[in-house]
Amino acid sequence: MAVANAHGRRFQKHLAKLKVDGYWVSHIPDLFYLTGYGAESCWGFFGKRRAALFVPMLAVEQVSALAKGFEIIQLKKLSEVYAVVLDYVVKAGWKTIGYDPSHATEASILGLRKVSGNKVKWVPAPGATIPLRVKKDSKELIALRRAGHVVVQGFNHMKRIARPGMRECDLAAEFEAYIRKHGAAKASFDSIVAAGGNAAYPHYITGNRILRKNEMVLCDIGALVDGYCSDLTRTFFLGTISPLGRKVYETVSRAQKLAIQAVKPGVKAAQIDRIARDEIERAGYGRRFIHSTGHGVGVEIHEAPWVGATSQDVLEAGMIITVEPGIYLQGWGGVRIEDTLLVTKTGHEILTK
Amino acid sequence: MAVANAHGRRFQKHLAKLKVDGYWVSHIPDLFYLTGYGAESCWGFFGKRRAALFVPMLAVEQVSALAKGFEIIQLKKLSEVYAVVLDYVVKAGWKTIGYDPSHATEASILGLRKVSGNKVKWVPAPGATIPLRVKKDSKELIALRRAGHVVVQGFNHMKRIARPGMRECDLAAEFEAYIRKHGAAKASFDSIVAAGGNAAYPHYITGNRILRKNEMVLCDIGALVDGYCSDLTRTFFLGTISPLGRKVYETVSRAQKLAIQAVKPGVKAAQIDRIARDEIERAGYGRRFIHSTGHGVGVEIHEAPWVGATSQDVLEAGMIITVEPGIYLQGWGGVRIEDTLLVTKTGHEILTK
Repeated sequence: MAVANAHGRRFQKHLAKLKVDGYWVSHIPDLFYLTGYGAESCWGFFGKRRAALFVPMLAVEQVSALAKGFEIIQLKKLSEVYAVVLDYVVKAGWKTIGYDPSHATEASILGLRKVSGNKVKWVPAPGATIPLRVKKDSKELIALRRAGHVVVQGFNHMKRIARPGMRECDLAAEFEAYIRKHGAAKASFDSIVAAGGNAAYPHYITGNRILRKNEMVLCDIGALVDGYCSDLTRTFFLGTISPLGRKVYETVSRAQKLAIQAVKPGVKAAQIDRIARDEIERAGYGRRFIHSTGHGVGVEIHEAPWVGATSQDVLEAGMIITVEPGIYLQGWGGVRIEDTLLVTKTGHEILTK
Repeated sequence: MAVANAHGRRFQKHLAKLKVDGYWVSHIPDLFYLTGYGAESCWGFFGKRRAALFVPMLAVEQVSALAKGFEIIQLKKLSEVYAVVLDYVVKAGWKTIGYDPSHATEASILGLRKVSGNKVKWVPAPGATIPLRVKKDSKELIALRRAGHVVVQGFNHMKRIARPGMRECDLAAEFEAYIRKHGAAKASFDSIVAAGGNAAYPHYITGNRILRKNEMVLCDIGALVDGYCSDLTRTFFLGTISPLGRKVYETVSRAQKLAIQAVKPGVKAAQIDRIARDEIERAGYGRRFIHSTGHGVGVEIHEAPWVGATSQDVLEAGMIITVEPGIYLQGWGGVRIEDTLLVTKTGHEILTK
C-alpha cells in the first residue's frame, strides 16, 4: 500500500539519510504535511515501504478519507498507545526509530522507551522534516499564492471600512469574515489589530480598544488556504499622520524595501536581517527594532528558514520568507510593515501584493 | 515582590505539597492561568516567595503590563535560555524544581538537566496545576457564564440565517463575527459546521460543502471570554426531518438529558458517561457513539475532569464539564448535542442556556 501523499513518499526516501528504519511524527504540522491529516492525539510512523497512523476511534473514518495509503490503527484509549506502537514496529521489523526531541514530550518518549526494552532503539533526529518542508513544490505554491492574494484583499477591506469609533476586535472580525467568504478556510493566526499605543506591542492581543482619529492602526493578519499560511502587516493612520509617525513609517518602509531587494538565492538570511537593521539603526531606532526581520511560512505561520541575526540559513529558490522590520515606541505606538515572499531562481516574488 | 495573580499565589503555596523548591511552567494555558500572560517561547518559574517569567525581547513590555509581581527576564536569544534559567534558580537557592513531563519537550528538559549538572534536580510532577485549575473560582465563573451565554446567542444567530445554498464556512464565519461583536474575544476552537454526511465525523474540518434542504447541520462551536472557553453543539435539520433523523436525534437528546440530570458533586465522571452510553446502547447505536461523553472546560477547551468510561475523576462543586453524546452513521451523517455545565453544591447549572 503506497502512501498517496507526495510529501510522505519523499519523506520515506529521506529516511535513508537519517539512518533509521522508521520515524515517529507527533508534531501536528508535520503530520498534516506528510499525510494530509493532522490533529491532536494522532501519531504517524513512517518506514521506507510502509506507514501508519495511530488515531483515536472518533477520527478513524475521517483519517481514512484524508490520508490514503496509510495503515490506520485505532486506539481505544490513549494509555494503550505505547504497547500498540511497539507491536506495530516490531512486526514491521524496525530496529531504529527516529523522532524529533523538540516536539516529543518527555513523557511520551519515556513511555515508548520503557515499553520497547531492547527491542527498538529510539534515536533523536531533530528537524528531520525541515529539509523537505523548507522548499515548496508547485502545488504548495498554488495555495501560498492564493493565501497571499486573499490576505491583501482582506486588508484592503479593513482599510476601506476602518473608522474612528470602531473597536480593534470589530475590525479583526470583519477581516476574518471577509477572507472566509473569499476562499480562505480561516485566519492563519490570531489577527492582530493594534490601535494607537497598543501598536508598541509586536504580539499584541486584539482587544476592545476604540480606533481614534489620527492614530495608527497596525494590522498583522494572515489567511489559511488549503492548509498554507500567509502573513501580512500594514500600519496606517486614521486621518492625519504626525511628523513622528511619518519619520518612523518612512524609516520602516525604507528598511523593508532595501531588505526585500536583497532577497535572492545564495544570500544568507542573516544578511537580510542586517540590511533592515542597518537602515533602522541609521535613523536612530536600532534599540526599538525588538525582533528579528522575518521567518519562513508554510503549513506553520513560523517555520524555517529564520531571518534573524544569528540564523545560519541560506536562501534557496522555493523558500518562503517574511520581511517585517518594525519600530516600537512605548506609550506612542509602533509601525511594522511585512510581506510574504517566495525566493525564486532569479530573485523573489512578493506573494502579498 | 508578590505575584499579583491569585492563581499564581495559590500555586506558590501548592509547591509545598509537590515537595519541590520551584516549578517550571512551559504549557501556555498553565502560564496564562498562573500569570495572566501565556505565549510561545515564554517560560515561568515559580518558587514559594518569588516567581519569574523568561520572555523574548519583543514580549517584555507586554508581559510587564499583564503579569504583575513577576521578575521579567529578557532572553536575547532562545539558545541562551538554559544558562539564564540556571543562573536564576541557583541564585534563588532552589535545589529541586518540578515540571510537567506531559508538556515539557524532551529537548528542553535534557537542555536544562545538562546545564544544571549537580546543582539542581529536575523532578517530574505531572499535572501539578490540575488540582487548582479543575475547580473554578468566582472570577472565572463570571467569564465562563458570559462565554456560555454568548455562544448560545451565536448559535441562535446561525440558526436564524441558515439557508440551503449557504456553505458550511459561511455559517462558521457568521458565527465568529457575531460572537466577537457580542463580547467574545474569538471562537474558543475552530468552529465545526458539518452539513449532511460530514456530520458523521465528530472532528470534521469545516469546508465548502453547501447546506442542502432537509439535511442536518451539526454545529460544534465555542466562545472565548476573558481567556475562558465555552463549548456547545447543536444539530438541526434544514427543513423536514426524516424518520431516521428523528429517531437518532431523540435518542441522543434523551441520553444527554439523562446524563445531565445525574450531574452533581460526588458522582463519578465515568458514571455520567455510563448513563449516556446505556441510553444509546438501548436504542441499538452503542457502536456508533465513538467518543467519550464529555470533558472539563476552562482556559483550555479540553481539560480535566474527563467524562469517559475509564475516567477516575469524581465531580466536585466548581468543576465545569460538557455532556455531549452523539451518534454517527457513515454516509448519512450524525447528531451530537452538547452543553457546558457547572457542577454546583446542589447539582448543576447549565451555562449554555
